[in-house]
Amino acid sequence: MAVYTDVSDDDLAGFVARYDIGQPIAFKGIAEGVSNSNFFLQTTSDRYILTVYEARAPREDLPFFIGLMDHLAGHGFACPRPVRMKDGAALAEIAGKPAALVSYLDGISVKKPSAAHCAAAGRALAQLHRAGEGFAMVRPNPLSVSGWRPLAEASGARAERISPGLSRRIADEVAVHEASWPKGLPAGVIHADFFADNVFFIGPACSGVIDFYFAANDAYAYDLAIALNAWCFEPDASFNLTKGQALLGGYEAVRQLGADEVAALPQLARGAALRFLLTRTLDLLDVPAGALVKPHDPIPYDRRLSFHRRIDSATEYGLTR
Amino acid sequence: MAVYTDVSDDDLAGFVARYDIGQPIAFKGIAEGVSNSNFFLQTTSDRYILTVYEARAPREDLPFFIGLMDHLAGHGFACPRPVRMKDGAALAEIAGKPAALVSYLDGISVKKPSAAHCAAAGRALAQLHRAGEGFAMVRPNPLSVSGWRPLAEASGARAERISPGLSRRIADEVAVHEASWPKGLPAGVIHADFFADNVFFIGPACSGVIDFYFAANDAYAYDLAIALNAWCFEPDASFNLTKGQALLGGYEAVRQLGADEVAALPQLARGAALRFLLTRTLDLLDVPAGALVKPHDPIPYDRRLSFHRRIDSATEYGLTR
Repeated sequence: MAVYTDVSDDDLAGFVARYDIGQPIAFKGIAEGVSNSNFFLQTTSDRYILTVYEARAPREDLPFFIGLMDHLAGHGFACPRPVRMKDGAALAEIAGKPAALVSYLDGISVKKPSAAHCAAAGRALAQLHRAGEGFAMVRPNPLSVSGWRPLAEASGARAERISPGLSRRIADEVAVHEASWPKGLPAGVIHADFFADNVFFIGPACSGVIDFYFAANDAYAYDLAIALNAWCFEPDASFNLTKGQALLGGYEAVRQLGADEVAALPQLARGAALRFLLTRTLDLLDVPAGALVKPHDPIPYDRRLSFHRRIDSATEYGLTR
Repeated sequence: MAVYTDVSDDDLAGFVARYDIGQPIAFKGIAEGVSNSNFFLQTTSDRYILTVYEARAPREDLPFFIGLMDHLAGHGFACPRPVRMKDGAALAEIAGKPAALVSYLDGISVKKPSAAHCAAAGRALAQLHRAGEGFAMVRPNPLSVSGWRPLAEASGARAERISPGLSRRIADEVAVHEASWPKGLPAGVIHADFFADNVFFIGPACSGVIDFYFAANDAYAYDLAIALNAWCFEPDASFNLTKGQALLGGYEAVRQLGADEVAALPQLARGAALRFLLTRTLDLLDVPAGALVKPHDPIPYDRRLSFHRRIDSATEYGLTR
């Protein structure tokens, strides 16, 4: 949860005046998103979410993120659609910071997804991959294998404060993946942060996906591997095979995995666990005194790594062939 | 801003099932309220606010607060109306804590009220006093004159850390008011926290009032004195006479002040400033390390006190007679 920006009366009035959206009748900071501030804005014409991009958001990538949402929504994918100002631009400014107004998406994220939720999430992820085809902009994924060594070095020996042996386990994993990371897999736009808090449901049905601020170009199966880590482990870090079957089955109901992707899945899942272990370790070590946001615990991803190291084949995750 | 309670999927489903309100389609923590957690809940039938009462809320007073909102809304005052469960009760429970579901109120609070906002706020406060007549429950105001000495003693000499001489100024003020606090003024239910963040507007018109968690039985003119402190001073603690005229004029357009209230207003305003100086001083001294909520600065109320000490008559606040 986070609302970092104080929006004054004048800021809001000036912002709304740049759009054809009527007059504001509700404006509330909401506890959604970690790096950006989000506000619920209701006007006489519709409901919206206003996102204010804070320092952590890479300003030069905002056109990619906003363009992607526009592309996905225009290709039938349920996600927030950027609203254009009277001058046609979608990237705005408020309180001196970059900002975007997007359409409001009904739905509620689930905290403990069931197998049915996992199946729906798998379908939604494949639909996202399909809908992203043809999006012209490109953003290399800074959090794929080439980005891991700098992250590992930034935490270094300090990782020992979190768990004995962690710095060594991280260094070994980075070396393994640098030597053998799968290349040439089917690729396109991936969400790259497909966690349960970014997927909305109404009842059992997925109503849409939010938070495209890690989206990048990378292997589709790596996105699926991230989702496998995010959706199919229990709070004690044990793997729930039923949920794995549901997620993978849901995905393949929309987009069939190729033989190369199936073969790569165990390493992709291991790499995905490492990617979140790395950023969470660093976030925990670098948390500023008096920070408003409690960092995620990295340890569950250390435990997922141990699990993935023992996996030989995608069928062990529940893939049927 | 504050969302202290984590509401699980099961908590929410169980909660909603106790009401006749359809199925949830949106549920978001919102940055509103300081001592309680608030959530925006949209269902297939309507929009609501769910308030979860945290430890600071006096549990035994919740029936008063909820009953008051029910009474006010039932008497034509624009405020959140508690929604009753299927069993008829309005005070519910969620995640092991007391909670209430109330109707959603359109509108936006203003951060820098204009004189027109002050006039509308004055009218709304008087309407609140009128609508509260006949409410049968009673809650003595713990933050009136008899509650000030314990607060002053709780900060004691530590107040010097905030401003040199503050502990002495506080002690002197407490003694003055204990000796001469006005008695027998027209009284009834007062809001007691009628600050700009608790009053909603749509355009220039007041659309309603929220946050009745300081409401109590006390002198109406004391409520007006609190509002005078809250609405009519500039950020540099200078008094804006135009806003004073607007607030008092707006109030009297609905409820005329008696001669006793007019005569008492300077001392009530001075006491109201002391009341907020006391709680803000204590909140600042007792702020826990790593607290999520930044305490209000007490100094502007120290400066308001100096101002009120030099006032002889309510006309100096802008009251026309």
